[in-house]
Amino acid sequence: MVTVKEIARMCGVSISTVSNILNNKPNVGEETRQRVLEVVKETGYQTNYFAASMRKQNSKVISIIVEDLCQFSTPPIVEAIMSYCEERGYRTILMNLRLYDRWQDTWYQDDEKVESVLSPVLQEIESIKVDGNIYVAGHGRTIRFFPLSFAIPTVVAYARSEKNRFPSILIDDENGGYDMGKCLISMGHTRIGVITGVANNMHSQKRLEGFQRALFESGIPYNPQWTVHGTWQRESGYQCAPKVLQMDVSVIWCMNDQMAAGVYDYLYEHDIVPGRDISVAGYDYMSEATYMHPKLLTCELPLHEIGRRSAEVMIDIIEGIEPADRAQWVPCRMIMGSSVKKI
Amino acid sequence: MVTVKEIARMCGVSISTVSNILNNKPNVGEETRQRVLEVVKETGYQTNYFAASMRKQNSKVISIIVEDLCQFSTPPIVEAIMSYCEERGYRTILMNLRLYDRWQDTWYQDDEKVESVLSPVLQEIESIKVDGNIYVAGHGRTIRFFPLSFAIPTVVAYARSEKNRFPSILIDDENGGYDMGKCLISMGHTRIGVITGVANNMHSQKRLEGFQRALFESGIPYNPQWTVHGTWQRESGYQCAPKVLQMDVSVIWCMNDQMAAGVYDYLYEHDIVPGRDISVAGYDYMSEATYMHPKLLTCELPLHEIGRRSAEVMIDIIEGIEPADRAQWVPCRMIMGSSVKKI
Repeated sequence: MVTVKEIARMCGVSISTVSNILNNKPNVGEETRQRVLEVVKETGYQTNYFAASMRKQNSKVISIIVEDLCQFSTPPIVEAIMSYCEERGYRTILMNLRLYDRWQDTWYQDDEKVESVLSPVLQEIESIKVDGNIYVAGHGRTIRFFPLSFAIPTVVAYARSEKNRFPSILIDDENGGYDMGKCLISMGHTRIGVITGVANNMHSQKRLEGFQRALFESGIPYNPQWTVHGTWQRESGYQCAPKVLQMDVSVIWCMNDQMAAGVYDYLYEHDIVPGRDISVAGYDYMSEATYMHPKLLTCELPLHEIGRRSAEVMIDIIEGIEPADRAQWVPCRMIMGSSVKKI
Repeated sequence: MVTVKEIARMCGVSISTVSNILNNKPNVGEETRQRVLEVVKETGYQTNYFAASMRKQNSKVISIIVEDLCQFSTPPIVEAIMSYCEERGYRTILMNLRLYDRWQDTWYQDDEKVESVLSPVLQEIESIKVDGNIYVAGHGRTIRFFPLSFAIPTVVAYARSEKNRFPSILIDDENGGYDMGKCLISMGHTRIGVITGVANNMHSQKRLEGFQRALFESGIPYNPQWTVHGTWQRESGYQCAPKVLQMDVSVIWCMNDQMAAGVYDYLYEHDIVPGRDISVAGYDYMSEATYMHPKLLTCELPLHEIGRRSAEVMIDIIEGIEPADRAQWVPCRMIMGSSVKKI
C-alpha cells in the first residue's frame, strides 16, 4: 500500500502538506491541492483505518504478528497472549503472514521471502500506532529482518532477536535436551541414537548441547556416529530410522514428535514393536503425540507460558518497566510414556 | 467500554451533540461542551481506534470472530479466509472469544456465556465499521445470539444461523454420514455399531440421518440398539467401547476421531487389535488421526473450503452479489485406512 511519504515524494511536497490536504486543512495552494489529490486517486491511497484516532495517546492495542497461524505451536501461544492482554486491559489485533501456507518450509533461511510479506504489515503497524508488537515465530531461529527504522516496542516469541535488539522469549532447548538425556540415562540407556532436526537449526543445536552435557555428567562418552540429521518432517524420521537401527542403539531420541511418528511408521512396517523391541522418544508433546501407540515419552514445549510471558514483558515495557533479561528461556517439561523401556 | 450513546444519555443530550463536541465542531453551547467533556473524562471514554477514518467509505476490512482459536478446526478455516481475502484485496482483523479456554465445553448450550464475551466484540465491530464479518463457530449448532439490531453483513462458518438470518457455510454432515455408511457396507459390514457425539447436536443428528439412508438404500435395517451416545471426548469413546463391543458388531463407527482414539485406547488395553479383531472408523480427519496405528478410516472435514467459501460469500455480499443459497453444505471426503477390515 502506498504511504503518505511516497505520495509526498511523488508530488515533490512535504509530508505535512499531503497530510493537510487529506485532512482538508486550509493554507494549501489550489494547484498543489489538485496535484496531490490526483496522485492520491491514482495510487488508490486510503487513510489507514487505525491511524486517525490513535495519534495522541496510548492506544492500549498490541499487535500480534504470527508467521503462520496453522503451525502447531502458534494458536496456544496466541491464545495465551490474548488472555494475558485481556487481563491487563489491552486489546490485540492479529496479523498472519501465512509463511508455511505460501512457501511450505522453504522460507526459514530466506529473509527476502519473509520481508516481502512482513514489510507491508510493519508499515501498517507503524501507521496504526499500536503500543507494542509481539512477533510469534513459526520456527525457532535468529530473527534479523526487522528494519532498523522500526520504532514500535517489539517482543519476539519462540525465536531469538538478533543482537538482543528485542526481548526474546524462547524455549529452553538446552535444558530440555539435558533433561531428556538424564531421563534416558536414568532408565538404563547408554547407547542412545539421536535424530536431530535440521542440523544448523537453533533447536537442534541447543538440544544436542544439553544432551551432551547430560552424557558428560554421567560419564558416558558422546558418540557422534549415533547422531543423524533429520529435517523435522515425519518422512525424515521414517528415512533415518533404518540408519539408526543398524547402529545397535537401545533407544532412538527424535528431536520432535513428528519424526518419532516417522520412526513408529518404520517400526510398524517391519514388525518391530516400539517400547518393547526398541525404545523411542520424541520432543514437543504436540497433541498428535498423545494419539501414538505406545504412548510416546517426550518433552513438552511451554507454549502457553511463552505466550503469557511475551505479553507480560510487552506490557511491562509499554508501562515503563524494562525486562531484566533480554532473552528469557522458558523450561520444558518431561512427559513420561511407555515408548521407552527401562533396561 | 463506554459508548458515545451512553455519554449522550448521561448528559441528557443527543448523540450528534456529543459527536460534535468530540470532533471540535462549532455551534455547541459552552456549558454543554464543558459538561460533556467532563463526563468523557470521568468515564475514560476513548474514540474507538478504528472508527474515525472509516466513516465515509468502504473500509476493505473484514472482521473474523472465532469462538476459539485453539479448537482444531479453527486455524485452517481462518487461514483460508485470510488467504482468500488477500486475493481480493481485503484486510482481515481477528477477534478470539476463547470460549473453550474460558469454559471448556460448558458453553455450547449456554448463550448467556457466549453473549457476555461476544457483546463487547460486536459493539467494537460496529463502531469499527468493517465491511463485513465472518463468525467462525468452534462447535456446529444453530446460532441464535446475534442481536437483531446488529447491522453488519455477517456470514456464519461451521455452524448455522437461526432462521437463515445470515448465510451459513456448513459441513455436509448428512452426505458425510451417508458416504461413511456406504463405505462400511461396501466392505461387507452390516452389523455396524455407532458412537455418536452429543445426542442433540447438529453433527450427530445429520450424520446419523445420512448413515440411516445408506443402510436403507442397501436394504439393511437400522438397529437403534447398536447406537450409543458419546460426548465427542476421547474419554467417552473409551467408555462407550465395551458397550458396543458386547453387541457383537463387526465395526464401530465413532462420529469423531477423538472418540475413535478412545476406542483404540480401550482395545489396546484389552489386547484387541483394531483393524484385525474389530474394525474402527472415525470422522473429522484431524491431524491427530494420522498418528493413530493402524491408520484410521475416517471422513475429512472440508475446513479449508469452508473458510474459502465463507470469505467468497462475504465479499460477494459486500460487492452487491447476494448468495443463491442461504445455507451451503460443503462435502466431506472419505479417507481410507486399515482400521476397517474387508469381510
